[in-house]
Amino acid sequence: MQLEAIAIDIGTSRPLVLLNTDDADELGAQPLDRVHIEQDGTATTGIVKRTDELVTRGTAGMTEPLHRIRGPVDVTIAGTPRSVRYVRKKLDDVELQFAEHETIVRDIHDNRLSDVELSAYVSAVYANGLSLEETKHLTETMSEIGQQLTWDRHPIADKHSIGGVAGNCVTPIIVAIVAESGLTMPKTSSRAVTSPAGTADVMEVLCDVEFTTDEITDIVTATNGCLVWGGGVELSPVDDELIRAENPLSIDPKGILIASVLSKKRSVSSTHLVIDIPYGEGAKVESLVAARALADDFKRVGTHLVIDVQCAITHGAEPIGYGIGPTLEARDVLAVLEGGGPEELRLKSLELADMLLEHCGVDASAADIVDSGRALERFRRIVAAQNGDPDVTADDLEPGPEATTVHADRVGIVTRIDNRQLSDLARRTGAPRDSAAGIVIHRAIREEVDVGDPLYTLHAETPAKLTEAETLAERLEPIRVRHKTDALVERR
Amino acid sequence: MQLEAIAIDIGTSRPLVLLNTDDADELGAQPLDRVHIEQDGTATTGIVKRTDELVTRGTAGMTEPLHRIRGPVDVTIAGTPRSVRYVRKKLDDVELQFAEHETIVRDIHDNRLSDVELSAYVSAVYANGLSLEETKHLTETMSEIGQQLTWDRHPIADKHSIGGVAGNCVTPIIVAIVAESGLTMPKTSSRAVTSPAGTADVMEVLCDVEFTTDEITDIVTATNGCLVWGGGVELSPVDDELIRAENPLSIDPKGILIASVLSKKRSVSSTHLVIDIPYGEGAKVESLVAARALADDFKRVGTHLVIDVQCAITHGAEPIGYGIGPTLEARDVLAVLEGGGPEELRLKSLELADMLLEHCGVDASAADIVDSGRALERFRRIVAAQNGDPDVTADDLEPGPEATTVHADRVGIVTRIDNRQLSDLARRTGAPRDSAAGIVIHRAIREEVDVGDPLYTLHAETPAKLTEAETLAERLEPIRVRHKTDALVERR
Repeated sequence: MQLEAIAIDIGTSRPLVLLNTDDADELGAQPLDRVHIEQDGTATTGIVKRTDELVTRGTAGMTEPLHRIRGPVDVTIAGTPRSVRYVRKKLDDVELQFAEHETIVRDIHDNRLSDVELSAYVSAVYANGLSLEETKHLTETMSEIGQQLTWDRHPIADKHSIGGVAGNCVTPIIVAIVAESGLTMPKTSSRAVTSPAGTADVMEVLCDVEFTTDEITDIVTATNGCLVWGGGVELSPVDDELIRAENPLSIDPKGILIASVLSKKRSVSSTHLVIDIPYGEGAKVESLVAARALADDFKRVGTHLVIDVQCAITHGAEPIGYGIGPTLEARDVLAVLEGGGPEELRLKSLELADMLLEHCGVDASAADIVDSGRALERFRRIVAAQNGDPDVTADDLEPGPEATTVHADRVGIVTRIDNRQLSDLARRTGAPRDSAAGIVIHRAIREEVDVGDPLYTLHAETPAKLTEAETLAERLEPIRVRHKTDALVERR
Repeated sequence: MQLEAIAIDIGTSRPLVLLNTDDADELGAQPLDRVHIEQDGTATTGIVKRTDELVTRGTAGMTEPLHRIRGPVDVTIAGTPRSVRYVRKKLDDVELQFAEHETIVRDIHDNRLSDVELSAYVSAVYANGLSLEETKHLTETMSEIGQQLTWDRHPIADKHSIGGVAGNCVTPIIVAIVAESGLTMPKTSSRAVTSPAGTADVMEVLCDVEFTTDEITDIVTATNGCLVWGGGVELSPVDDELIRAENPLSIDPKGILIASVLSKKRSVSSTHLVIDIPYGEGAKVESLVAARALADDFKRVGTHLVIDVQCAITHGAEPIGYGIGPTLEARDVLAVLEGGGPEELRLKSLELADMLLEHCGVDASAADIVDSGRALERFRRIVAAQNGDPDVTADDLEPGPEATTVHADRVGIVTRIDNRQLSDLARRTGAPRDSAAGIVIHRAIREEVDVGDPLYTLHAETPAKLTEAETLAERLEPIRVRHKTDALVERR
């Protein structure tokens, strides 16, 4: 069918083609059917939406991924992409071959799968799992799509945390230590998707984080390290698509998690990697057994990709720093580098840094590098190379001016700090978009508290956001205080 | 956030709320996040799409299910519906409780689930299955939503085919026989979704099929039967939603299939039901073992709902009538009632009708009712009651004027007739929208053919559609002819 293509913005990353209902009927196109769109001999695929008003007969409305297509096009019904058959195979719990996984990954990357089909793939992997072979294949094909960073140095040190813990901003401290030791550590990080702050959001408080691959090379050449946003260099674009299905369902199937992490590490040419696996109630991995199994799989798939992986299984049931939110976490990071800051954050950073140094065969002490002020010096060089102010100190960073402190309403001890509730609360204050918004935690688990002792403070940039967070806080209990006796025995 | 609601038509059944990117950022709303929309004290839920152009700041674009909301609204971030937790539970292969399934069904009906979440539910049921208890619960909750037809007669006879066989239009013949026997058979049928003709499409060639519940009652009171479109009376609206996820994936998980069929039968108050389960290569159920297991489950869930179910396991590897497409199938139906027509169609209709008569305790012979002309007479009364011309005959029905016959290119026997290929081909000719389009089959399986013998004829309403179908026909082989020796032994 000959149609006139026009651009339509409905804020989707799907290549939708809006057809007038009458045209769609004539074409026999149901919602979610795929159509071939041909123009001047080149063809692409779109997903049909039917509309009575938005486009008139004879017109095809193209959404963002297709919106460069204008003028006369030939639209015909296209078949279902081959990968849908393989998704069904996975739903049937049949092991996929390399080429089959490759087809799925390519179709996801080329936006050929609808939300229904993408979700079915993620659900199938969650329900039936991926074998080690399948995980290797998925990782390999995912890393082959997207940009690559390469280096004329060796080794390339890297660190990753599988997340789920609030205020766990150890990465900038580790990069400063490792880069100062003489090793190369070009760290790419994510922005928050469902959390109140990703490492990239925290660094953005201090400097730029979005650079081209050439600029990243220059920064690393000058400073041995960098702390940039991975999304700026499209390292594993398929990962972002998979997240679109994982997030609404709050699932993170093991095979996809491993492929997502290691495909990115392969794209930045990491050779020595330490993975932080926090476990515990409320963390992504809830048991020690599951954490160990995940660690083993990471190592095996790493070996296949020639990445030497070591895992640090850490306790993840409570926050590491005081602050949650970009500015508040940046303040903790600087405070530790300046010689103070939250003790847990310092200890965890030093431990992971030591592990990475040893893993790369470097004989140095993370504590020495921090205590001598050299880590702070190196961090300032990196901030400067990323167009930030190298002279900023922890005290310069001001939390959001609108603040409320929540106090203990009883005597007792802190029996639980709920990562997820803190995360939800911090987002309600406006983090990560309002960078100075977030939460400061005043008490650690097992600490004794008296009536009226401060438990945590909400910070927001505007009174309205503070009110919203206060309203939510009334319904939650992110820091739970119980009488000593109640704390010891759970009666039910 | 205070916004001004406007209606936007983007042809979706999802309750999307289009927010300007800046507003969405301020609200902290990611794509697929849910928002509460409050107006004059009543609240509803929408799913966020972000857009730069379609709505300006301060405006919220409401799509169809919400488009009656206009003017000032208060938009706030809403949590994930509870049912998503139960979907995850099903993905974890944990049996769902009654209340959990009820929540899922209500959320699907209220349009609270995104495509990703809906697909995850269908995928989870496919991968992990539903227990018999779960299937009962799903059926019960599905039938409680939507309209009900009730009768002051007993028994209420009904028949269903789980589909997958082309040209299998036995239903109008059975209804005519059973209604003539004195039983009540108010039959609701579907229109084609992915097939070239549903029973409702076939009947629409002869009369109206869309009626209110009151009108249906009148038709049944006058004639003992009806042949109407079920979609016109919203009998099991959740079923239509589930199909949205099942179709793109070409899956039809057993538990959902059973719930879908029986919830509709319960909504029309059927008491005695015969279910046709065609099995064989290319049919929905491929093996006899699977067909028997499905039959047992249908009977068990039926008992729970006080519907007396009998199943007819039939051979479904090849078409039953000559014609595929609304007009061509209507012609076969009339021909059988007139005493001729395809032998297979007559035999299958008589067998199923006899089964249903016996199941309802009526001592009558389907063959007698047809051969005496009484079935035709009853059928004409139903057609007249549904505003059709009662005097129409098989010969009056003209297939599409644009036609091409495909001939055998070798001597041999017909070894296979491929339902799916015939279905695809018939749709390409324009069926079901072009009601006279479709296919006439000239040869049955195991028949001998000579070079040049006609195998099948494509009918279309326009030359363009015929050309499209011809092009597809060149790539397919829906009626496979092999030399006799090759047909006996498959060499591989």
